[in-house]
Amino acid sequence: MHLNELRRDYLLDRWVVIATQRKRRPTDFIRQKTGSKKRGICPFCPGNENMTPPATLVYVRKNGKIAKERDSNGFRHTGWLVRCIPNLYPAFTWLPEGEGEKEDVMGFRSLPAIGHHEVIVESPNHDEHPSVASIDQLKLIIEAYMDRFRYLSSREYVKYVSIFRNHGSEAGASLSHAHTQIIATPIMPRIVKEELDKAKAYWNRMKRCIFCDIIRKEEKSSRLIWENKNFIVFSPWASTHPFEFWIFPRRHQPTILDMNPEEIRDLAITMRKCFGGLKNLLNDPPYNFGFHMVPNSSFHWHLEVYPRLSIWAGFEKSTGVFINVFSPEEAASSLREALARET
Amino acid sequence: MHLNELRRDYLLDRWVVIATQRKRRPTDFIRQKTGSKKRGICPFCPGNENMTPPATLVYVRKNGKIAKERDSNGFRHTGWLVRCIPNLYPAFTWLPEGEGEKEDVMGFRSLPAIGHHEVIVESPNHDEHPSVASIDQLKLIIEAYMDRFRYLSSREYVKYVSIFRNHGSEAGASLSHAHTQIIATPIMPRIVKEELDKAKAYWNRMKRCIFCDIIRKEEKSSRLIWENKNFIVFSPWASTHPFEFWIFPRRHQPTILDMNPEEIRDLAITMRKCFGGLKNLLNDPPYNFGFHMVPNSSFHWHLEVYPRLSIWAGFEKSTGVFINVFSPEEAASSLREALARET
Repeated sequence: MHLNELRRDYLLDRWVVIATQRKRRPTDFIRQKTGSKKRGICPFCPGNENMTPPATLVYVRKNGKIAKERDSNGFRHTGWLVRCIPNLYPAFTWLPEGEGEKEDVMGFRSLPAIGHHEVIVESPNHDEHPSVASIDQLKLIIEAYMDRFRYLSSREYVKYVSIFRNHGSEAGASLSHAHTQIIATPIMPRIVKEELDKAKAYWNRMKRCIFCDIIRKEEKSSRLIWENKNFIVFSPWASTHPFEFWIFPRRHQPTILDMNPEEIRDLAITMRKCFGGLKNLLNDPPYNFGFHMVPNSSFHWHLEVYPRLSIWAGFEKSTGVFINVFSPEEAASSLREALARET
Repeated sequence: MHLNELRRDYLLDRWVVIATQRKRRPTDFIRQKTGSKKRGICPFCPGNENMTPPATLVYVRKNGKIAKERDSNGFRHTGWLVRCIPNLYPAFTWLPEGEGEKEDVMGFRSLPAIGHHEVIVESPNHDEHPSVASIDQLKLIIEAYMDRFRYLSSREYVKYVSIFRNHGSEAGASLSHAHTQIIATPIMPRIVKEELDKAKAYWNRMKRCIFCDIIRKEEKSSRLIWENKNFIVFSPWASTHPFEFWIFPRRHQPTILDMNPEEIRDLAITMRKCFGGLKNLLNDPPYNFGFHMVPNSSFHWHLEVYPRLSIWAGFEKSTGVFINVFSPEEAASSLREALARET
């Protein structure tokens, strides 16, 4: 009789059952597409710049070079390569008169949702997702991440900057034009704080980075998916999603701001490989990704990618324990082959 | 300009943005149904008992009374009212030779997934969901929860018993016949452990129950939805889902095993009201529910219900901070009216 395995995350108090009793193949996870991709006018497409607030950052080509500009209230740049705009319905907003922490009259805790919520439009071409974009375009996107991360994380009231992508409507994307979101929050989120606390404690005890140690183990494991000189991609030991993978820079560095030009290029290559492989293996599945990064010497930034091929249901939501029906080792094996086929 | 509110859960280190910038009405959350409900043969319907493993518990009527029986390998009871069976693809399994905690050769933690995974078929009638079931039938379902909880939580290797329901395919239900699942785990799940730790600390400091104090506050708040002599229903202060609600017994009691017959009846009435109101307000939305209960004197059991009307995307998954686009106060107001219309 088969006994499933219960695994704990490297750092988090997060357990997942690797439930492989019902044998599945990667093709079992391919879903039929529902609905058409493009409906109505896309506010992120060139020509529709007036449908969005003024850009906080645009990359435009000027005299053969990339210039970094911003829109003003009455003016929108056209001919842009990457465009960063405030979210029309922001979860977090910056207001000068925002107040500090307060207690509700009942003693329940509340804070004003001071912060920022932006969208990075990754390309003027509606369908230019990272699986098909040029390396040069991907480098521009990464540089836009860096520019906005640098600006937002230096605000006094900002405690964390989350850069994430929702791809596909089942992953929460309301628009199909390739875009990434950035949210700057006045609190340090629980998951990142727990990782940081563990990383700090490990650093103090062992005098080295816990993530560097994880990389050294995973590069020799059956969960390794792909690597180049500066990056490594693997299925995490306690993946909470089928086909989940994490991208790490080899060199110890707390945030993406620590990357050198060669690393930026290698990250662009890695992203193209990974998202191309994922798309081809599972017929362009919906997915989310999120950067984890903290400007603290014990932290090591990474990008976590969660394909949405199963549902977190009553058990997961009420306990915080997850069930994953596809093992990370099998996922890595399929993804390894799929990535090898990418150019 | 509108500033959203960031709220912290009563006990958990869990923050949620109540993002009400884009005004919505309850009808905005109504989704079109996809696909037909009943496809092929239902293994939970009467006559198909041989499609499932032998029942660990069946309620059958004998001489005008309810008798509690179990199937054997070659025999299946028919004419049952409630039927509890092992899950055909269990996440957790009991094996006598299961081993204890072990470390992977790489130092990553792993446990055999020893435990139980059962399904309670709530009625012989395929569509008899709690919104339409009789109070007598609902009492039987609750008694089945109690019987299985009593049995499973007394196993030496079991650290927690989770009783949960997935309703609707978008909520992870693979079969539409009304059913609840039970998972017994060899670990105490993170969310419940965090609640228990906070409740214990509060008890030691204040000499009273933190949940009883929350109830006393919420029964006077605009988040109150419904109450009877023994139960109270409200939208939690920091709801992570639109239209989320929690059901609490008024009397301090750690688990459902502490209910007296009057409370069992009042819980049946409360569940019928709540699930009927939810169904009618939002056109039978998909939802999950999960009981939180711990046999510890400082704990106070409750049932958390999460309608699935929005998507946890990249931000939620990578940070553990949630965005809820409908305020608990407005949700309570709509649900209060909807429940009042239920008979």
